[in-house]
Amino acid sequence: MLKGIPSILSPELMKIMLEMGHGDELVIADGNFPAASCAKRLVRSDGHGAVELLEAILPFFPIDTYVEKPISLMEVVPGDSTTPVIWDEYKQIIKKNEPAFEEFQMIERFDFYERAKGAYAIVATSEQALYANIIFKKGVVSR
Amino acid sequence: MLKGIPSILSPELMKIMLEMGHGDELVIADGNFPAASCAKRLVRSDGHGAVELLEAILPFFPIDTYVEKPISLMEVVPGDSTTPVIWDEYKQIIKKNEPAFEEFQMIERFDFYERAKGAYAIVATSEQALYANIIFKKGVVSR
Amino acid sequence: MLKGIPSILSPELMKIMLEMGHGDELVIADGNFPAASCAKRLVRSDGHGAVELLEAILPFFPIDTYVEKPISLMEVVPGDSTTPVIWDEYKQIIKKNEPAFEEFQMIERFDFYERAKGAYAIVATSEQALYANIIFKKGVVSR
Amino acid sequence: MLKGIPSILSPELMKIMLEMGHGDELVIADGNFPAASCAKRLVRSDGHGAVELLEAILPFFPIDTYVEKPISLMEVVPGDSTTPVIWDEYKQIIKKNEPAFEEFQMIERFDFYERAKGAYAIVATSEQALYANIIFKKGVVSR
Amino acid sequence: MLKGIPSILSPELMKIMLEMGHGDELVIADGNFPAASCAKRLVRSDGHGAVELLEAILPFFPIDTYVEKPISLMEVVPGDSTTPVIWDEYKQIIKKNEPAFEEFQMIERFDFYERAKGAYAIVATSEQALYANIIFKKGVVSR
Amino acid sequence: MLKGIPSILSPELMKIMLEMGHGDELVIADGNFPAASCAKRLVRSDGHGAVELLEAILPFFPIDTYVEKPISLMEVVPGDSTTPVIWDEYKQIIKKNEPAFEEFQMIERFDFYERAKGAYAIVATSEQALYANIIFKKGVVSR
Amino acid sequence: MLKGIPSILSPELMKIMLEMGHGDELVIADGNFPAASCAKRLVRSDGHGAVELLEAILPFFPIDTYVEKPISLMEVVPGDSTTPVIWDEYKQIIKKNEPAFEEFQMIERFDFYERAKGAYAIVATSEQALYANIIFKKGVVSR
Amino acid sequence: MLKGIPSILSPELMKIMLEMGHGDELVIADGNFPAASCAKRLVRSDGHGAVELLEAILPFFPIDTYVEKPISLMEVVPGDSTTPVIWDEYKQIIKKNEPAFEEFQMIERFDFYERAKGAYAIVATSEQALYANIIFKKGVVSR
Amino acid sequence: MLKGIPSILSPELMKIMLEMGHGDELVIADGNFPAASCAKRLVRSDGHGAVELLEAILPFFPIDTYVEKPISLMEVVPGDSTTPVIWDEYKQIIKKNEPAFEEFQMIERFDFYERAKGAYAIVATSEQALYANIIFKKGVVSR
Amino acid sequence: MLKGIPSILSPELMKIMLEMGHGDELVIADGNFPAASCAKRLVRSDGHGAVELLEAILPFFPIDTYVEKPISLMEVVPGDSTTPVIWDEYKQIIKKNEPAFEEFQMIERFDFYERAKGAYAIVATSEQALYANIIFKKGVVSR
Repeated sequence: MLKGIPSILSPELMKIMLEMGHGDELVIADGNFPAASCAKRLVRSDGHGAVELLEAILPFFPIDTYVEKPISLMEVVPGDSTTPVIWDEYKQIIKKNEPAFEEFQMIERFDFYERAKGAYAIVATSEQALYANIIFKKGVVSR
Repeated sequence: MLKGIPSILSPELMKIMLEMGHGDELVIADGNFPAASCAKRLVRSDGHGAVELLEAILPFFPIDTYVEKPISLMEVVPGDSTTPVIWDEYKQIIKKNEPAFEEFQMIERFDFYERAKGAYAIVATSEQALYANIIFKKGVVSR
Repeated sequence: MLKGIPSILSPELMKIMLEMGHGDELVIADGNFPAASCAKRLVRSDGHGAVELLEAILPFFPIDTYVEKPISLMEVVPGDSTTPVIWDEYKQIIKKNEPAFEEFQMIERFDFYERAKGAYAIVATSEQALYANIIFKKGVVSR
Repeated sequence: MLKGIPSILSPELMKIMLEMGHGDELVIADGNFPAASCAKRLVRSDGHGAVELLEAILPFFPIDTYVEKPISLMEVVPGDSTTPVIWDEYKQIIKKNEPAFEEFQMIERFDFYERAKGAYAIVATSEQALYANIIFKKGVVSR
Repeated sequence: MLKGIPSILSPELMKIMLEMGHGDELVIADGNFPAASCAKRLVRSDGHGAVELLEAILPFFPIDTYVEKPISLMEVVPGDSTTPVIWDEYKQIIKKNEPAFEEFQMIERFDFYERAKGAYAIVATSEQALYANIIFKKGVVSR
Repeated sequence: MLKGIPSILSPELMKIMLEMGHGDELVIADGNFPAASCAKRLVRSDGHGAVELLEAILPFFPIDTYVEKPISLMEVVPGDSTTPVIWDEYKQIIKKNEPAFEEFQMIERFDFYERAKGAYAIVATSEQALYANIIFKKGVVSR
Repeated sequence: MLKGIPSILSPELMKIMLEMGHGDELVIADGNFPAASCAKRLVRSDGHGAVELLEAILPFFPIDTYVEKPISLMEVVPGDSTTPVIWDEYKQIIKKNEPAFEEFQMIERFDFYERAKGAYAIVATSEQALYANIIFKKGVVSR
Repeated sequence: MLKGIPSILSPELMKIMLEMGHGDELVIADGNFPAASCAKRLVRSDGHGAVELLEAILPFFPIDTYVEKPISLMEVVPGDSTTPVIWDEYKQIIKKNEPAFEEFQMIERFDFYERAKGAYAIVATSEQALYANIIFKKGVVSR
Repeated sequence: MLKGIPSILSPELMKIMLEMGHGDELVIADGNFPAASCAKRLVRSDGHGAVELLEAILPFFPIDTYVEKPISLMEVVPGDSTTPVIWDEYKQIIKKNEPAFEEFQMIERFDFYERAKGAYAIVATSEQALYANIIFKKGVVSR
Repeated sequence: MLKGIPSILSPELMKIMLEMGHGDELVIADGNFPAASCAKRLVRSDGHGAVELLEAILPFFPIDTYVEKPISLMEVVPGDSTTPVIWDEYKQIIKKNEPAFEEFQMIERFDFYERAKGAYAIVATSEQALYANIIFKKGVVSR
């Protein structure tokens, strides 16, 4: 543990976020996501919900401003009547950190898996809400 | 995730607990414990308190009945006026799973470090209570 | 060994099943299956039949409900007069754990090999019945 | 699987037994033995009893004739009233393979652990009988 | 060394043959074969001829009965007047172990290399006879 | 790079500082220190002075309050007339972050090497000032 | 550290530059470049600007004379009004070491990423100027 | 060092030449060749010329007689007026060991790189003559 | 295979013999020797007798002339009536290569094991003669 | 290869010399030295004499001035009438680089081996002169 770093950010996750550059992607996956079979680099965060992680990550992690929709969600599968309320929570946390944020990019389930396979890392949470997977494209740190 | 296994138990932790045998020891360390420098096998559980972990672990993990005091705590350092209230919470969870449990073994701080170095594994939590480190000696599974 | 976990589930197998996510596949292979040459992750379970393993695995392992036939068998090769009686045993164990189960998907021998190469893991048993290979697609754990 | 080799002997176990030489020791451990923390080389044999393994191993494995008592058991801990009936089963299997066998060497529990740490390999069974641990000293193959 | 296992079968080779399944292929290569550059798994057997190895391997290794010609040789290169007499020795040893054996499949030199690259393992002997390379497709062990 | 983390802190160094616990030690070594031969974990920081690093590290890194002198310097070797002015710079940076700091512990050269060998990690700078090596004992993060 | 080698050149970087041959490419990346996801071999140089590195590298590193434009920059993305002044600094340092140098090759952003993935190594600086990435093609050392 | 083996042949090089089989290729590269980026297996021979190595290698290394031109050189790049005199030295050493040798195969520069990538190994010398790279295809050892 | 190198000398063994220096020891072990548990570096030579190996090794391997008895045998265990005739064969091969050789050093069984543990490498043959283990101390190659 | 770095200095050796710090030792060993069995880090320099290496190393490598005799040789073994003329060559090269150098420290043969085991690295040359082994203690680079 260090002063000023939330304890939910593991040493490995902090290292990975520091290594990432402009355009690299970070997936926060829910508890049912096939994270171990998709991930180039896997960070397990067992027992945690996705919201707690977003709140710890976003104050450090810049979002890409070179693309229109730098944050992506997995679309509800056709025929499934679920309405993911967690998306609103996500929106609030993101807006708090990136006020210019407007809209998510929606990605079909199997396209989402392919996208996740190309991501720099996947954080496997135990989030129990369905369709809680989310991808962040990293932006530029300017001083 | 699997049916009937609490999500806070990571795949690695479950594997390690299954590998352990009679007399092997498992340390649940608080957030300030030098876990990485003491552990033969390190399981990180960043962002979690120790109580949550004990509640998930003890229904699976048998406690040794061949020694008098199979569960150990780190003694408060002389001169430190802390009274660790978390010890009472520990006692309750343990009693719920092992009704015959009576008393903790108390270990001096630097002896505790040596004991931890010999343990089978250390689980590094982010528990913020002081003196929250605890060692469990594994018992026998009989059917 | 742990309380409540059948001893036939090795630490490695338990870890692998916990790591798997929605849509990942697990192959239980018979003793003649080329498991070592097909497996991304190989769990050896030498000396055991497949039925014993299914009985231990299915109480923990959720079956996918997003596809019509989430459980697959290897078709008898044309010209071979074998009638695999073990399939009925499989059906009974599956029904006990997943009452909604109806029908297996049948896969041609060499297609089955390709499917197995894409699976998350293969458990190599010593099952002596022929055509005893079976693939499970993992479902969602909801609480 | 190969012709003439019992399927309970895993590829790894067969390799290890072939590698061992005169005087090297092999431990068959019961399900509660701390095998992973003691073993130089660990062969897991989850779900099996010790008797099945002995029956498969001894037709291949020569016993040392240069020492008086080449096969050792763990003594019952003083105060424990257990009488391990499995020892008679062991004796029968051994006599069938090594008719000259007479008596076991008895080793105190913690001395047994030290001895196991020096052994070439430990086979971790799920044997549920207590005091079922046994050590074999390998002999010479002469043609 | 073990009782009943020929000493020419190294621990590694025995392990590999045990791991192989139905349809996996084993190449016994002569001393000039580019074994190290073709092999997925390489077993060196320096100083031995191929005939000695076949005699040790075939009593354990079942041959595939699901294909017409489960054993293959490398064709003599056009223009080369060699007549490989070792092929007759091979036939005798094979017939002794698999009386139903009839004819070899003949493979052109560079096709043979490709086939060897897909094999489960290559055993590199020091056989000095030319065109002594041979591939065995593993069959089923039935009890 | 991340928002709020100085770019001189490499991903590896940040990970290591997060892993360290109460009582673990971190050495900032000058350019001539035998860091590679002493370090359990080595972080290279070639081309940087030690002062820049201290300024980046100390806002995150708590100093131990359980010992009297948690920060140590290497004593000038007897007979060497050097007066290390860099020690005053160190004092200023430390006081800014830990106002209660009073005095350094002074350690003889070869004792310092032994101490460094036991440290959790060594950061190898290219600091050119002599006697610029310094050891920090990590304290407790309390919230 | 060695006599005559600038301390900003880490042991790893020096080794990599020595290993490179005619036509191999070295990327000096700015702090926002996705270096870890593109690099075959990654050398971190956290906390340093790119200019300092060029000044240390070029006296040792010969530039290719077999191609017309052996040094490449990343083009400003269309619509971005940045004018990278750092390019002039680069030109000066290069001219000092390679007087014959005339013009940079300009590469579109995503083509630059592909080129970097094929490079022998990437040095990840913390350069904060935008569009500061630069690729050097190694030439021949003649004596 | 061993009796009868020239000391310029490193243990690693000797091992690699022994492992190679009929048709495998060995590249002796000059000091500017991009050996580290092309080699499947790299043997460094820093500080040596190519002629010294050929003189040590060829008495042990048989040349392929199944192809017309088993030894290849890199063609001079069009427009380059170099005439590589080292080629005559090569011819002499080769003729001394393989009297039947007649002509080199000439390979265009970038084709040569591709060929080298497929070779069994590359020996990286510090040969300073230009166009000194040479590829040997291994032949058959017959007794 | 190479010209002039006996095929029984594996690439690994040749590499190891080349690496050894003055005073390093090489053990040729019989088939019952616990080679895998004693060896720092193990070279398996399954299926071969020790005499064949000595004949291939000694023309390359210089014997130490700085000690009186550079070649050692394992003494017959007291009470064992074996007279190892293989020792005479050893003597003849040694004398052919090192005419000045006179007498073996005799080492008690368990001292021999300790000595073997310190040796540079052990070659594990399948020699069936008893007491056939032998240690060679390497000498100096002078030109 | 790089401009200004002698080609005999391999990438690995340059890296190792850069990593070394004040007091670390570098051994240049002759061709008969047991380098592989003594070295913590081994750099092979097969085919080269020791003098060539010293001439390349010393312009970069500072010698320790904190001890009286920072350069050591192996004493001639009592009874051996060799007079190592190479020592004079060494002296000349050293004096050219370190004019203040006066006398070597002489070390008995087996003490020399122990000293070499503690050194940071050993460079194994093929130097054929006897008693040509030499140890350098690294000094401080000051600017």
